[in-house]
Amino acid sequence: MAVDRNYFQTKTSGDKKNQHKGETGPTMVGDEYSDSALMNYLGARKTTMLGNNFSEYHVDEPPRVILDKLEQAGYRVVSMTGVGQTLVWCLHKDTL
Amino acid sequence: MAVDRNYFQTKTSGDKKNQHKGETGPTMVGDEYSDSALMNYLGARKTTMLGNNFSEYHVDEPPRVILDKLEQAGYRVVSMTGVGQTLVWCLHKDTL
Amino acid sequence: MAVDRNYFQTKTSGDKKNQHKGETGPTMVGDEYSDSALMNYLGARKTTMLGNNFSEYHVDEPPRVILDKLEQAGYRVVSMTGVGQTLVWCLHKDTL
Amino acid sequence: MAVDRNYFQTKTSGDKKNQHKGETGPTMVGDEYSDSALMNYLGARKTTMLGNNFSEYHVDEPPRVILDKLEQAGYRVVSMTGVGQTLVWCLHKDTL
Amino acid sequence: MAVDRNYFQTKTSGDKKNQHKGETGPTMVGDEYSDSALMNYLGARKTTMLGNNFSEYHVDEPPRVILDKLEQAGYRVVSMTGVGQTLVWCLHKDTL
Repeated sequence: MAVDRNYFQTKTSGDKKNQHKGETGPTMVGDEYSDSALMNYLGARKTTMLGNNFSEYHVDEPPRVILDKLEQAGYRVVSMTGVGQTLVWCLHKDTL
Repeated sequence: MAVDRNYFQTKTSGDKKNQHKGETGPTMVGDEYSDSALMNYLGARKTTMLGNNFSEYHVDEPPRVILDKLEQAGYRVVSMTGVGQTLVWCLHKDTL
Repeated sequence: MAVDRNYFQTKTSGDKKNQHKGETGPTMVGDEYSDSALMNYLGARKTTMLGNNFSEYHVDEPPRVILDKLEQAGYRVVSMTGVGQTLVWCLHKDTL
Repeated sequence: MAVDRNYFQTKTSGDKKNQHKGETGPTMVGDEYSDSALMNYLGARKTTMLGNNFSEYHVDEPPRVILDKLEQAGYRVVSMTGVGQTLVWCLHKDTL
Repeated sequence: MAVDRNYFQTKTSGDKKNQHKGETGPTMVGDEYSDSALMNYLGARKTTMLGNNFSEYHVDEPPRVILDKLEQAGYRVVSMTGVGQTLVWCLHKDTL
């Protein structure tokens, strides 16, 4: 079954020592299930962190800049939340 | 009284050691009150964790993929939040 | 001054040992300011916890089931959040 | 520059020992920048906590009752979140 | 590629000792990617914290006052969340 990719999730992580760090990026914008054309549009690089058996896409820009780019691709923020020291955005694209 | 199942809740849990783990799944998509046809549509398996006296449904895919499938079934994200190391989505389906 | 009861708050509490427990209920659906007809509709029981000088209403069902019942009574979820180990929903009813 | 006061913030704080306490009030509804007519409408009292060099407005009622009153004054909840043991609501009023 | 700046993020930080402090400001309203005209409109000052290799913009007013000003500039709150002791707002401006 083909499923449109209408939901998008992005996040940035601070750390307890430097709560401000996360806001300047990097921003995590995808994983191995992500649309590679969209990852390319965002200029994201694919990385596999040591000890992980899965890949992620990151960009160096802060989340707000990524949200602006994603809006041009049709996505809008539905909700934002914090979990631990990480700030997460859930975006959605309407496909009429 | 019969009540339509218009609200849907899904969640994924990371852990402190590996904050990224939860995003690759598994994703918890239901419990014993859930609509079994919908659980079937999502390809969820029913499990009972050791020491629990209730069942849950899980899928191996990450939450974003599940959100896309749920949208095809008529659900849209209302809100997302973090509680502890767990990320929770609340979805709603309009029944006109 | 009479004020319509257009906002509704419900919550469920997990605990650190068993993060899943809260999702099977019980769900807290009201306090002594709540509309008793609505509490009755939800099948809630009034309880006073030891050491508290105020009452609360609880139901045994998980939050999602309560959200469905509340929707039939005209309420819709505005926002959901986590505070500590507790998941809280804020609902609203339009009165035209 | 005169700025309309279209955003409103209210909050209530529990504590770790008694997570339920905050829900019965008191509720913090304003600070020294707040509209005193609105504070008066809510029946709020101005207080300065020991050791603080700023004032706050509180009411004894729980947040849900305050949200209902605020709706009559034109405000609606935009978002709710938890930060520490505190539950915070962000409300907005349309001025056409 | 030129990207409109339609998303705006602002935040305020309390601390564990004095949870109320953050609400009186200062409020963080931007970073080096921010629109300097908008920063100027808000009366923000640019600062670089000791040990950081990036700049931020702050204002002395509490978040609610800033949200009101931002609304006059076309922004509306999409979501608010807490992460650690910090309260974060995500705003969006429609560009027709």
